[in-house]
Amino acid sequence: MNPPEELIRFFHEQNRFLILSHINPEGDALGSSIALALALKAWGKDVRVYNRDGVSRIYQFLPGKEMVETTLEEADLLEYPLIILDCNSPERVGLKDKKTGFAVVIDHHETENSFGNIKWIEPGAPATGLMVYELIRKLSLPITPEIATNLYTAISIDTGTFRYGNTTSQVLRVAADLVDKGARPAFVADKLYESWTRNRFELLRRMLETLHIEDLKGDNSHRTITVAITHITSEMFRSTQTTSADTENFSNFGRMIEDVDISAMFRETQDGKWKASLRSKGDANVAVVAAALGGGGHSNASGFLFEGSLEDARKKLLDVIKAHLLK
Amino acid sequence: MNPPEELIRFFHEQNRFLILSHINPEGDALGSSIALALALKAWGKDVRVYNRDGVSRIYQFLPGKEMVETTLEEADLLEYPLIILDCNSPERVGLKDKKTGFAVVIDHHETENSFGNIKWIEPGAPATGLMVYELIRKLSLPITPEIATNLYTAISIDTGTFRYGNTTSQVLRVAADLVDKGARPAFVADKLYESWTRNRFELLRRMLETLHIEDLKGDNSHRTITVAITHITSEMFRSTQTTSADTENFSNFGRMIEDVDISAMFRETQDGKWKASLRSKGDANVAVVAAALGGGGHSNASGFLFEGSLEDARKKLLDVIKAHLLK
Repeated sequence: MNPPEELIRFFHEQNRFLILSHINPEGDALGSSIALALALKAWGKDVRVYNRDGVSRIYQFLPGKEMVETTLEEADLLEYPLIILDCNSPERVGLKDKKTGFAVVIDHHETENSFGNIKWIEPGAPATGLMVYELIRKLSLPITPEIATNLYTAISIDTGTFRYGNTTSQVLRVAADLVDKGARPAFVADKLYESWTRNRFELLRRMLETLHIEDLKGDNSHRTITVAITHITSEMFRSTQTTSADTENFSNFGRMIEDVDISAMFRETQDGKWKASLRSKGDANVAVVAAALGGGGHSNASGFLFEGSLEDARKKLLDVIKAHLLK
Repeated sequence: MNPPEELIRFFHEQNRFLILSHINPEGDALGSSIALALALKAWGKDVRVYNRDGVSRIYQFLPGKEMVETTLEEADLLEYPLIILDCNSPERVGLKDKKTGFAVVIDHHETENSFGNIKWIEPGAPATGLMVYELIRKLSLPITPEIATNLYTAISIDTGTFRYGNTTSQVLRVAADLVDKGARPAFVADKLYESWTRNRFELLRRMLETLHIEDLKGDNSHRTITVAITHITSEMFRSTQTTSADTENFSNFGRMIEDVDISAMFRETQDGKWKASLRSKGDANVAVVAAALGGGGHSNASGFLFEGSLEDARKKLLDVIKAHLLK
């Protein structure tokens, strides 16, 4: 993983930057943005950071979060060289059809469009934070404790704090270096995993009460696929004073059960439809399932929308899993 | 962290070893024992591994687990040089008052007794697995993928997979090396955290239904201590077909809530008494609380026994917290 020469030149030649990241940002988008901004600022550059949705409650601990602006003049997009992080288009940034000037794209998602004057795409990188780490080192900029905390958070989120399959030895070595530079693993983990509001915890508890497990057997196959299904109704959101933002990660709980292949969580949206999040283990491909239901995603994490009763939504999901994964 | 010279000599001079670890073993005791045994065996030594309680369901994935014996002849204890891992006495091994021969103690808990002919105690080490890693390297023995998986598991368990305060940069670097040697982070995490039985999950769900949060205010202090209390009755164990072994880590769930300082879980024991597990964040010292109730432990993790009704147990706990932590 090596930043291209033209990218390094770009940072040396330019003196002002506008860093952008995707809407509904998580730790990788925010941590990468703030870390790069802090490093460039300490270098004497003029840096601004924009995110349409700003820094959510859970990420308020990130040092430098006050740099993140949530409004922008259209002129800024032409005036500043843009650095788009953790995504690859103005659309994902929430700036569809806006005119932009010179733009750099730094992303670890597979790019599918031609946007950007300089592109550094590493689909194999576990996190954009890891790319920003390499970039900062290549630019020989110092990594302060504040930068280290932002990058450690970025890498933590995208590797499930070193529990996902993308946890390479390189990830762990970079994490070690960030700890030496001042990141505190227990502090970050506490903020990410032990800072639930009481209402969110109550919502989880109610969701778990809806848990239902189905063992699907194929007609002509010896395989069994076990599906854990939970749901959250509008009434549950209302009575716990929570919103869909509080359900981040909820669909993973069903995966804790040893024989569960697919965990599905349905949540009622404001317009009375259902939004389903699917998570799977091993080779149970939920991208295929979601696609058959008009949705999309990755092989172990996907989603789709459903209009109708919860009962119909459940039945439809199980039918599609049977048809596509138990052939 | 450096194994003493006499310990290195011991391994060179002896040709047979009996490795012992504490009763109710978790990943650090088992992973350290099996890793050391595999390394010594590959060196051509005669090695046996004993644990009174054997390898529980969750650790069945450890390569080499079939080496662990659960019975022993009294003569073995005199015949073999003993290596006691992750604890410091025959009593903790479940062999109280048994005659033992030459014994080595390797432990990261503060030792409080004089047992052992060679002692290597590192109270600052995050896990015994880390000490065994250093030992194997000092002995210049190869680390196979099987050894790496055992040591990675040992280190994972004792650092909460790199989330606890004992996660140093050294821990992360050793983990990186173990990944290079064949340990697979996602495989180990899946086995440790996503392999719950359905019954255990059902028990958790029922325990969460009992959650009750108390905000304690001191009479003359402005401080508030928030306590999350849950419980599990004998009836809940019976109806979910679970045992106390299934409650490992349950007391941590209350800690997920942002303003909770102390999480307390009461579980009914077979003789109708209550066993309380206390977990705390930051400087809420639950060792002091447990001691005042006749129990013991560390400042962030302790426990005590209570005879009486659940209501009395709860009241007593809250009174003691008020008296000792809100003075």
